[in-house]
Parts: sequence; C-alpha cells; structure tokens
Amino acid sequence: MANKNIKEQVVNGIRDKVLTLDTMNQSVKNIEYAVLGPIVLRAMELEKELQQGVKKPFTEIIHAYKGDAHAMGQKPITFMCQVLALCQYPDLLNSPAFPEDAKKRAKRILQACEGHSTGSYSASAGIQMIREDVARYIEHRDGGITSDPENIFLSTGATSAIMINYYLDEEHHWALDVAELQEALDQAKAHCQPRVLCVINPGNPTGQVLSRENIEAVIRFAYEEHLFLMADEVYQDSIYAEGSQFHSFKKVLMEMGPPYAQQLELASFHSCSKGYIGKCGFRGGYTEVVNMDPAVKQQMLKLLSVRLCPPVPGQIVMDIVMNPPRPGEPSYEQFQQEKKAVLANLAEKAHLTEKILNKQPGIHCNPVQGAMYSFPCIELPPKALHHAKELGQSADMFFCIQLLEETGICMVPGSGFGQKDDTYHFRMTILPPVEKLKILLEKLNQFYAKFIQEYS
Amino acid sequence: MANKNIKEQVVNGIRDKVLTLDTMNQSVKNIEYAVLGPIVLRAMELEKELQQGVKKPFTEIIHAYKGDAHAMGQKPITFMCQVLALCQYPDLLNSPAFPEDAKKRAKRILQACEGHSTGSYSASAGIQMIREDVARYIEHRDGGITSDPENIFLSTGATSAIMINYYLDEEHHWALDVAELQEALDQAKAHCQPRVLCVINPGNPTGQVLSRENIEAVIRFAYEEHLFLMADEVYQDSIYAEGSQFHSFKKVLMEMGPPYAQQLELASFHSCSKGYIGKCGFRGGYTEVVNMDPAVKQQMLKLLSVRLCPPVPGQIVMDIVMNPPRPGEPSYEQFQQEKKAVLANLAEKAHLTEKILNKQPGIHCNPVQGAMYSFPCIELPPKALHHAKELGQSADMFFCIQLLEETGICMVPGSGFGQKDDTYHFRMTILPPVEKLKILLEKLNQFYAKFIQEYS
Repeated sequence: MANKNIKEQVVNGIRDKVLTLDTMNQSVKNIEYAVLGPIVLRAMELEKELQQGVKKPFTEIIHAYKGDAHAMGQKPITFMCQVLALCQYPDLLNSPAFPEDAKKRAKRILQACEGHSTGSYSASAGIQMIREDVARYIEHRDGGITSDPENIFLSTGATSAIMINYYLDEEHHWALDVAELQEALDQAKAHCQPRVLCVINPGNPTGQVLSRENIEAVIRFAYEEHLFLMADEVYQDSIYAEGSQFHSFKKVLMEMGPPYAQQLELASFHSCSKGYIGKCGFRGGYTEVVNMDPAVKQQMLKLLSVRLCPPVPGQIVMDIVMNPPRPGEPSYEQFQQEKKAVLANLAEKAHLTEKILNKQPGIHCNPVQGAMYSFPCIELPPKALHHAKELGQSADMFFCIQLLEETGICMVPGSGFGQKDDTYHFRMTILPPVEKLKILLEKLNQFYAKFIQEYS
Repeated sequence: MANKNIKEQVVNGIRDKVLTLDTMNQSVKNIEYAVLGPIVLRAMELEKELQQGVKKPFTEIIHAYKGDAHAMGQKPITFMCQVLALCQYPDLLNSPAFPEDAKKRAKRILQACEGHSTGSYSASAGIQMIREDVARYIEHRDGGITSDPENIFLSTGATSAIMINYYLDEEHHWALDVAELQEALDQAKAHCQPRVLCVINPGNPTGQVLSRENIEAVIRFAYEEHLFLMADEVYQDSIYAEGSQFHSFKKVLMEMGPPYAQQLELASFHSCSKGYIGKCGFRGGYTEVVNMDPAVKQQMLKLLSVRLCPPVPGQIVMDIVMNPPRPGEPSYEQFQQEKKAVLANLAEKAHLTEKILNKQPGIHCNPVQGAMYSFPCIELPPKALHHAKELGQSADMFFCIQLLEETGICMVPGSGFGQKDDTYHFRMTILPPVEKLKILLEKLNQFYAKFIQEYS
C-alpha cells in the first residue's frame, strides 16, 4: 500500500477503504477471546430469533458462559447502593431514608473529590483517600505487612492477560505444577523472551484455590527465571471448599524473606466485579505493585494520566469494599448479613454443580473451591470426535454448539482456554439462581447422555 | 538483555529488575502529555507545601490548566443526579422526593440493563437502548440525516489523538488552513505513511469554532489524501461567540454528496465530560463511525469485548444527554434552566477572558468562540528568552513556572501543544467562578507587566 500512488486511485471512482484488514494493526487481528467466540455469537442470534417468535426446543437462552453476577440475579449490597446514590445526588444527604453511616461515608468520599463532586476527574492513579483505604485493607488482609498507598493504582476493572499458557493438574484439584510452568516457559523461549508470568488465584476457568506451598513454588520459579509476576486475585473473597484458604501472593512473598521479598517484582489485581460485590458495570478495581523500578512507575503514572482517570463511581464501590461498615455502625449487621447470604448462596451452588454433574457417567467435575466457574471434563465418543473434525471444529466446541441449539444453554468450550491434548471440557458459571441451576444441570446431564447414545 | 544468561545473574545477590526503562515498551517512553508536564507536577508539590504550612506569596493553587468543570464549581444538572441515584438504588423509586419523569427514565434504563441492575456488564458496544437513543439524537442534530445504532459505540470517555501536527491561523481567529494541513502531511510522509487526520471542533486549546467552508475543505483534503478522518466533537454544545455555529462533520459530509458522502471514512467522538454536563469522572462517551469497512468494525467489536464494557454509570449520563426531559414533562423547565445557566455562565467567562487579557499590552487573546479554553499569545522580551534558553526551558514554560511560583496560578505553556516558531502562548481554562476568574485575570496581567519590566 505504502508504495502505491494514492492520489491516482481517486479518479477511478470507488476505491479501497483507508482502514482495512490489510492496513490495520495486525496485532488486533491476532487477538482471540474465547468468551466472545462463535458460541456466544450464535446464542445472541438465537435470542433475537426467540424474541421474533421463532419456535425453538427451549424458551430462553441461559447465559452460563459469563461471570456477570447481577445479570444472573445476585442481589446488590444495600449499603453500597445507598452510598452511591448519596454521592451522586447529595441533596439526599438531608433525607431521613438513609442510615447515618451511609451519609457519613458519602460525605467523606465527597470531601475527597475535587470540588466535592463525583463529576470531577480524580487524580490519574485514583482518589488519594481511596488509595489509602486500599493500602490499609491490604495491610489488614496480610496480617500487618505494610502496603504503600503510592504503590496502589485504581483501575477501570481489573485487566490481566495470560502471557504463558500452562496446564493445571486436573488429577490434583487443578493444582499448579511447576514442572508444567518450566515446560511452558522453555517452549515460549523458542520464539520470544518471556518477561511476565501471570497467575490467577482463585482460578478461572477451573475454580481452584492455590495452596501456600504452591504459591511459594511459583514465586521461586518466577524469581529464578527472572519473570515479573502478575497475580490476578479478583476472586479473593470467593472461597467455598472446606480447608481452602486464600493466601495473597504479596503476603507469601513477604514472608519468604530475602532474596524474594526485596526483589521479586509483583503486581496484584483486585476488582469490584466479582465475589459478593458483583458490580461489573462499574468497572472498578486496583493494582498494587511491589518492588517496581521507580522509573517504570513514573512511566506508568504518565500512561495513566493520558487516560485521565478511572471511573469515579467504580472507585467509590471499591472504597466501600475496602472499608465496609464497622461493628457498632448502623449498617454493619445488614451489610454482613447480605454479604454472607451472597457468599453462602455461591458456596451452595458450587457444591450443587459438583454433585449433580458427577452423577452423570462420562462427566467429571472437580470441586469448585473458589471463584465462580466449574470446568468439568467430558468424555466424548470417537464418532463425535470424527464428526467434529469433519466440520473443522474442536470436539468440545461441537458439543457446546449442539447443547446450545437443543437446550438454550450457552457455555464456553474448554478449547477456548487451552486444555491437555485429547481432553475435553466446558466452562460454566455457578451464577444462575439455585432452582434454575438445578434444572440447568439436570438438563445438561440428560443432553450429555443423549449425545453419547447418538454418537456411540 | 535477551542474550545474557539470566540465571547466572541471580547468584550475585541484587540483580537488575525485570521491568526497567530499557526493557519496557519503548513507545511508552516516547509519549508526551503537556497537561501533566513539569508545571502541573510543581503545582502539586506547592499544594502539598501549602498544606504543610509553608509560607508562599499566595494561599491557594488555582488550577487553570485542566478542563474539569465540577472541580471548578460548575453545578451538576439535578435531573441527571436524580436518575443516577434512582438507577443505583432502585428502592428510591418509591420515594415521593423524586419527580415522576426521573423515575420513569430510571425504570426505562433499568429495564435495558441485564438483570435490571446497573451492576451488570453491558454489551461491549454499550446498552442497545442507549445506542439507539444516541442515533436518534444525532439524526435530530443533523437535520434528519440517518444514523445507524450499529455504528454507535459507547466509550469510556472520549479518547482521541492528534496524529498530524498542524497550526491554526491565529490572525483569522484560529481558522484551519488547508495549506497548513498539506505542509504537515508532506512533512509526515518523509518518515511514515499517515492514515488518519484528527480534527477537533470546537477547538482545544484554541477555542475556535470551524466554519462550514472550513469543514468542507478539511473533508475534501482528507478524501483526496486518502486519510481516515477523526472528528473530536466533544465541545459541540459549547459555543459562545455570536455568529459561530456548530456544524457536525457527519452532516457536512453527507450534504456534500458523492464521492465524499459514500466513501470518506469518519469517526466522530462525543463525551459527557464537557459542556453543560461536565461529568468527567463518569467516563462516558460515544463514537459514531461512518463508511467503516465492515470487517474492520468486526475487529473493533472484538477489541471492545476484550475490555468487556464501558462503565454503566457513564452510559446512563450519556443517555440523559442524548434524551433530555421533553416539554411537558415535570423536569423539563428546571433542566433547561440549569443547562442555560451553565452555558450562559461559560459564555460570560469566555467574553471576560478576552476582554480583560486584551487590556494588557503585550498579551493578545482571540475571542473564545467555543469549548472552554483561551490560548492567548504573549510577547516575551529578549532577556527572558535568553534566560529561558540558559535554563534549557522553552520561553513560555519559563513564564508559566515564574507565574506559578509567584501567584499560584497553574497553566500549560503553549509549547506543550505546538505553536508557530517565535510565538509564545499559554492555555488557560475559562472554568473558575466569575469572581475568581476576574481576580485571576487581573493578577495575570499584573504579573505579566512586572515580568516584562524585570526582563527588559
């Protein structure tokens, strides 16, 4: 393109677009995103057809593919709604309909906003008071290990990217095997110089919770291989399995002492989209950086300032998560009750998923220890594999498409996340309401049995 | 770095960081952002010193550098605050304290949210109903020219980047001269293949409003040079000068007919951060694309879906801007009154700025036709130029730093935006409250007179 004489093309009437698949940034074309793959696009089409009155073997699409809690009926936390309403319409501060601590909280937040309005830009790294609240929260979470507000950057949700693909150990409840990491790293080195290891705990799509030993091994590995460690810890409040416990990478790192504690570069991500909060639409979150080169931090701040600031409503939600009502405050009991109810409900659904799916021969589902997904393994008969191959689809994609067309259940095939050769999975959220989830799981089992029969 | 044996570095104790200025993405280092330059960093330091009780020749820093309306005391629009509060805490729908149309509006928005909650993710391109409201607004604005909701993408604020530097014609109220564009393009072609022309109207930093003829010339130029045109039109509601009128690039393009209307690729940006709205912290906005290659649009959608969705509270604000209360609805009068009051106040300050600054010999300020900045030209004496050169600063940077240190007024030097050789400017917002703005402008004139005396 660059060598053609562009002005000459004009005289021939219609000409090429300026921006085409050929002239665009090629890296964009290379992006793959399993959660918006062909299955989800087909589900959207089916939904439109249902609205237009087209007859289907089902009456609604069940979105079991996306971690969107409120969309699936999870109740918002009252205190959060109250503080948000007060911050955004301060006339309500005079209303007797709001508890005093919600008003106090809103006043404190407004005080920290430029011009005392949530409509102002915040500093690029976020409102200073909220950065301080985050640091205090982390210190409390990690048993007193210090956290510097200057290392906290409020964000637009939590973004992360798996830079190295590795497999978890399905036989050991999806534990993270360092030998697997080593193999993935060696493979990557053949065509690039890996700089970052990105880990998620509790896990998506597998729902595992890493043990302390596991985390230590990952830290040693990252240190020895000179990798920057990114820890996606957005599910830190969502632990369901007995005996499972959340250990932050920061805490484990600091307790390991030298040389790790002073040298390993770590970024930890949290968000207001998950757990008992589930306020995905607010795009709130934070990053804590540890041992980051100060010159790089300055560059990061510059980059953040070009994007101006993270959304202030999301910062407010994050502040309430960091600093919830305390014992003795009027909203304390209700806040705790609502939080516990949401988490207990998620735990119930985690157990239910494991229990019902494992009733079905050919499906194996590990315990959902945390987060909000299960990643069951399914056996698929040779005829189905053959059929999928003919269609140019992965076998679990073929299964998920059939499932969607017959039942309206929309899930993401395991091949979109990566899985060991000759194994097949799907990712399913545990978010639908209990009664709906039960029906969904039974329907899934029935469909699976029928599918096996058909392709055996 | 890539060739060194990294494992060997470990045994020597402290080693290089993984992520350093050398190993990071070099494009990040190259970014320059005038609005967070040394002046603003110094202003932040001074602010801290004032808080700590350090004596200064002033008692507060006046932030005249940033277009942050609410931070400068601009009143939020009541109806918007009400709808936001209702959407985020729907229990309030039963409260008699809210007008019926605000409730109706909130219910309509909640109905369009997944799970009827603002806490859910929206579709990646934004809530469908809001995309439709945007399209209807654009059609109305442009006198009936159709707008397709599928071409509307809700965004996180409005982002844009000037890809080609060009100078406006100061002698003609900052008009856009196509000969200037041609020169800039020819220069750019020496080291790259320019694909995009980015125009802002009404203008930042110069506050000019482009005439219809000017816009037509830009469109012809972009078409002939095979450039994708990006029109930053976030100040479309902010026009103050008599005889100035906003013409959208879309409307002018469509009215120009073939070959332009069917072929020129255009993206137009709008935002909820400016004008009478000023809700910067909500990060709301939209992009309308015209004549975009459908395959590229699909890639854009994929890219947007990786970022999940724009913040829902910002989408709500945008919806109210697109679809304000109508005549006969209970909130109509108050909404119009508040909107007019904000815009009249901005217009008063635009005139005031021009008037007071032009009283001062050596300062020349063009009329602020729109947006919310003035970009006055200042004469600087040779001794000041010499002094600045010795310090390795541009002369207007030197002036702005002296001004900040002596008066607490914080502005961005013109050199940060680009200006013709041997001319000097600063960018100043017109946002401070009228009384404060008057004092600021008089103080500025006095300082300038003193500065000239000192360096003559």
